[in-house]
Amino acid sequence: MRVFHSVRNLHSWRTKQELLEGPIGFVPTMGALHDGHLSLMQRARKQCRTVVVSVFVNPLQFGETEDLGRYPRSFRADRRLCREAGVDLLFAPPPEEFYPANFQTTVTVNRLTRRWEGEARPTHFQGVTTVVTKLFGLVRPHLVYFGQKDYQQCLVVNQLIQDLNWDMRMIRCPTVRESDGLAVSSRNRFLSAHQRVQAGLLSKALRQGSDVIRTGIRNVRTIQSRMEKIFGSDPDVHLDYLAICDSKSLEPLTQVGGTVVILGAVRLGTIRLIDNLLVRCP
Amino acid sequence: MRVFHSVRNLHSWRTKQELLEGPIGFVPTMGALHDGHLSLMQRARKQCRTVVVSVFVNPLQFGETEDLGRYPRSFRADRRLCREAGVDLLFAPPPEEFYPANFQTTVTVNRLTRRWEGEARPTHFQGVTTVVTKLFGLVRPHLVYFGQKDYQQCLVVNQLIQDLNWDMRMIRCPTVRESDGLAVSSRNRFLSAHQRVQAGLLSKALRQGSDVIRTGIRNVRTIQSRMEKIFGSDPDVHLDYLAICDSKSLEPLTQVGGTVVILGAVRLGTIRLIDNLLVRCP
Repeated sequence: MRVFHSVRNLHSWRTKQELLEGPIGFVPTMGALHDGHLSLMQRARKQCRTVVVSVFVNPLQFGETEDLGRYPRSFRADRRLCREAGVDLLFAPPPEEFYPANFQTTVTVNRLTRRWEGEARPTHFQGVTTVVTKLFGLVRPHLVYFGQKDYQQCLVVNQLIQDLNWDMRMIRCPTVRESDGLAVSSRNRFLSAHQRVQAGLLSKALRQGSDVIRTGIRNVRTIQSRMEKIFGSDPDVHLDYLAICDSKSLEPLTQVGGTVVILGAVRLGTIRLIDNLLVRCP
Repeated sequence: MRVFHSVRNLHSWRTKQELLEGPIGFVPTMGALHDGHLSLMQRARKQCRTVVVSVFVNPLQFGETEDLGRYPRSFRADRRLCREAGVDLLFAPPPEEFYPANFQTTVTVNRLTRRWEGEARPTHFQGVTTVVTKLFGLVRPHLVYFGQKDYQQCLVVNQLIQDLNWDMRMIRCPTVRESDGLAVSSRNRFLSAHQRVQAGLLSKALRQGSDVIRTGIRNVRTIQSRMEKIFGSDPDVHLDYLAICDSKSLEPLTQVGGTVVILGAVRLGTIRLIDNLLVRCP
């Protein structure tokens, strides 16, 4: 496995790749790799001649009050995991090369970013779409791998791919979960024992919503109140949103039908967790 | 010469190009091709194995009150000129394929677009950088050709290339001028005989500024007033700006020094013309 820390190395490597056959698969990450990332790499390894992983904690996608400074960093463990997963190239640029002082470009996807995570974290998706534009332009992959856990991000990046006419396809991979249903996330390591129990309630609430929909109930308010009951009255759990939306536009619904997505976000102390479930209505 | 009207054709063509050696040169245009564009194509033809020209009147870079509807369109003449110039591929997508109804992405370069054309035309550069991001991603050229006449545009696009880490180089080509100094432009064809005479004053004023600087005068207000005198008191000439700026940041100067750029914009009736001169101070 090669490890590049510089854009220049990536440029010359990519030029040589043009002479080889078969797809390049790309897994962009912020490091602190876990089983969710591993599942993306394994999928890429199965489908592609060349697998590229980036590890870059992107400052642009953190708000001013968010956890950039304490976001977990574990480069040596990440590198080992990539090597074991059969990754061909690990790209980990230093922030000061990636965003020099004179950097002044922003890439924005508009409609899809207005609600949910976009509302809770106003500059977040701009940061994601800007870094992804840079990384995709550098790596020029044929297939890109994202986890469904960040469902809105998947839709936003896919819209970016369509809008900018990139000749690539997104592979959205299923959310990897702990035994109690909690979606694996780099931020889970910060949970106290008590918070870890509370965190499990989010996926439980989503499954509750899915179960209620499957019983034939269509009214979103009814479904929502059944989901909210899962959290009880724990004052340490702050529910940001539990929304039932059109699975493509992410607009909230009042009556479910077709394929919907249930989106949830909770805050436990300073830790914010998100999750979602796609539900096909019976 | 091939002519493609669809993104799909361009994708498969570009994939094949990866197997060939030598640079791809790209001249993005809005059609209505003139001697300025021709000079870009000729330069590209000399330097590149493959020359790609796009003809696309980009609606995003016109303001709501601007001249999108009457912008000159002459595809058959453009195609002939490209063929004669030895262009390999002419790409002319229909607007409805390029910007489908669900399109929602914007690419913005921030600081460099605040002043001058960015101030006079608030959404203009966003339109330019968005279309250029799409076109560069499609064509994936090694060299891109722009005319110095749109000096701020050259800086903005070059910043975009740096910021997004594209592995390409901009070739900024000299402004092509009529015998009286007027910069050639697709909009010149709309000038009445009287306006055509007035239009010549803009380049004359810029040369005047350059001459004054060469005499050793450093005070920008003094230089500006000498340039403004060229226009006399013609009520039909509206001077948008005549600015003397740092040639890299485009910030206005009070004292000239080093290499400066004189930027000018005038309105004659509904026609707006821009021009500039780079001046190395003695």
